Amino acid sequence: MSTSPSPLCVCIMAGGKGERFWPASRAARPKQLLPIASARSLIAETAQRNLHVTPAENIFVITTHDQAPDIQKELPELPPHNIIAEPCGKNTAPCIGLISALLAARTPETVLAVVPADHIIPDTARYAQTIRDAAAVAAREHALLTIGIAPRSPETGYGYILAGDALPTTTATAFSRAEQFIEKPPRPRAEELIATGRAFWNAGMFVFRAADMLDAFSRFIPHMHAPLQRVIQTAGSPAQSAAIAALYDAAPAISIDYAVMEKAHNVIVAHGVFAWDDVGSWAAVADHWPHDAEGNATRGDVLVLDSSGCVVQNDGAGITALLGVNGLVVVRTADAVLVCPKNRAQDVKHIVQRLQQNPAWRAFT
Amino acid sequence: MSTSPSPLCVCIMAGGKGERFWPASRAARPKQLLPIASARSLIAETAQRNLHVTPAENIFVITTHDQAPDIQKELPELPPHNIIAEPCGKNTAPCIGLISALLAARTPETVLAVVPADHIIPDTARYAQTIRDAAAVAAREHALLTIGIAPRSPETGYGYILAGDALPTTTATAFSRAEQFIEKPPRPRAEELIATGRAFWNAGMFVFRAADMLDAFSRFIPHMHAPLQRVIQTAGSPAQSAAIAALYDAAPAISIDYAVMEKAHNVIVAHGVFAWDDVGSWAAVADHWPHDAEGNATRGDVLVLDSSGCVVQNDGAGITALLGVNGLVVVRTADAVLVCPKNRAQDVKHIVQRLQQNPAWRAFT
Repeated sequence: MSTSPSPLCVCIMAGGKGERFWPASRAARPKQLLPIASARSLIAETAQRNLHVTPAENIFVITTHDQAPDIQKELPELPPHNIIAEPCGKNTAPCIGLISALLAARTPETVLAVVPADHIIPDTARYAQTIRDAAAVAAREHALLTIGIAPRSPETGYGYILAGDALPTTTATAFSRAEQFIEKPPRPRAEELIATGRAFWNAGMFVFRAADMLDAFSRFIPHMHAPLQRVIQTAGSPAQSAAIAALYDAAPAISIDYAVMEKAHNVIVAHGVFAWDDVGSWAAVADHWPHDAEGNATRGDVLVLDSSGCVVQNDGAGITALLGVNGLVVVRTADAVLVCPKNRAQDVKHIVQRLQQNPAWRAFT
Repeated sequence: MSTSPSPLCVCIMAGGKGERFWPASRAARPKQLLPIASARSLIAETAQRNLHVTPAENIFVITTHDQAPDIQKELPELPPHNIIAEPCGKNTAPCIGLISALLAARTPETVLAVVPADHIIPDTARYAQTIRDAAAVAAREHALLTIGIAPRSPETGYGYILAGDALPTTTATAFSRAEQFIEKPPRPRAEELIATGRAFWNAGMFVFRAADMLDAFSRFIPHMHAPLQRVIQTAGSPAQSAAIAALYDAAPAISIDYAVMEKAHNVIVAHGVFAWDDVGSWAAVADHWPHDAEGNATRGDVLVLDSSGCVVQNDGAGITALLGVNGLVVVRTADAVLVCPKNRAQDVKHIVQRLQQNPAWRAFT
């Protein structure tokens, strides 16, 4: 199999708000900037992981203006101009259009992997191999690749991709034509999907030639064609900022799945077999922390008595003490405390929303 | 009925450690110094209540050296020399011996009510009437009076007093000979006791002539006779401190119930019919706070979503948020958080004990 003749680039999408990790996550300090699984932030782990895919000069980050300075501090190994600020957050489609245009301005043959900043992927070697194999297929097939994750359980919190015909390949990674994208399914449907043996979790990681993604944009979001061309024409010039602002003005706030991947016919799913976790809530982080004999996962100064299956984080000075409780999430930061059952952890965003409605409490969001 | 010819004195016992209110209560700030039920501390409420019994110059406080300055600040209406520091905490018997000796030194006829600093008694008028009626009976009968509380439920956390023959009386308060003191009973025994119609909760409030209590000490703890006499002889002199220190050296660390009341034959129980709560834990405070429609009782900046029956206190700046939990106690202070079910609130002292065992955490106790 031939390898991509152009440099492989990685774009880390870091626009997430991460309300589900309140009170550790705040508007100015979203999930990707938090040390969720280790002593380093998720975005620092993500950058480190992708240095096994491509050199630092080929790794880009797209984020918000607010977060850009903090992200530069987190990623000192990246050239500062590789950290690109979006005018505003509009989901993944405009972001992927933008980076595709900026890289196509250098060379349309560039193969690009776009990956979220806030996932946990412990198996760096297998991840990097999968991305490189996918890049080779993208270059050869002029296809849009999506990295599917072999499902471990009938999760209802993920979208699924149903794989069709297998591609002949000599790489470590297997590939299939993508037959169908399925939105987060109810439990029975998720069980059916897994039983097919052809279902993958949609991990929100994509690999493609910049030119192929721009072609797809022109086909499926035609009114973005001209603004994208303008970004290509102005790339690196003083007019670039205005072109990016115009692109975001024109762009709908939708996901790349909905805008492009579900509609395109040249979509291939890579069979990702590495461990992957999008750590969608405090309940999920417990899998990545040490546990005591009663299944309590704790970080910081935490005293747990007669309790089991709890997830407790105590940030900074001070102490958090639990007595006689089971299956709770408790998080203490300098100015806030969260208490909820693990099975409600995905609803913590409702707390953030309620705090935002109260002027006296908005500062805590 | 005749009234007491000597001034009625009140002694507030304020030696409690209050570990069950951690993290609000600390070694240096025990329960009686906390504003548990209102904006004022329990001891300030107690002093205010007893001003309806007797003037400020007749109200005394016995406490520890550590707490004396804070208590003086809480009780500016009391003469500073009415706040008496114990050399060390040794339960209620030495404390009651000491105040009896100090007041007997003025006049042995003094009638004295000793009451805990940290109870909640909303009905001040009926409380004051009960104490005054008990004082009259103590003076007339030369008896040791204990204020029993008409039980509302078969509580297992209180001692009980079984009433015998009724005393003839013309006062608003009824009185009976005390037949038996019963330690905290198991539930079936508590139900039996209530069914007798003659059981009262032991509220730890006593009324007696100073001379009668000193007689009882001489009979039941004879080795305290000489040290108590020495306190009487030195009262108000430079030798008083040394006499008090010697008294506490000699004294056993036991309760007045165990040392005297359960053994004496001249014990009378006053039928207290006022609302009374010893607020033994965070679970109990909920009865004294406003509730929302779901039975959540909260103080401070607290957000409660999809939760019921919780007791939540957020001290000072910052916020505490609960989602989807029931029957929990959550308390946040500047440097600590407690989470436990209401039905384990009486065990919060175990947390304090564990924190004390860890040198790094001792500062939180």
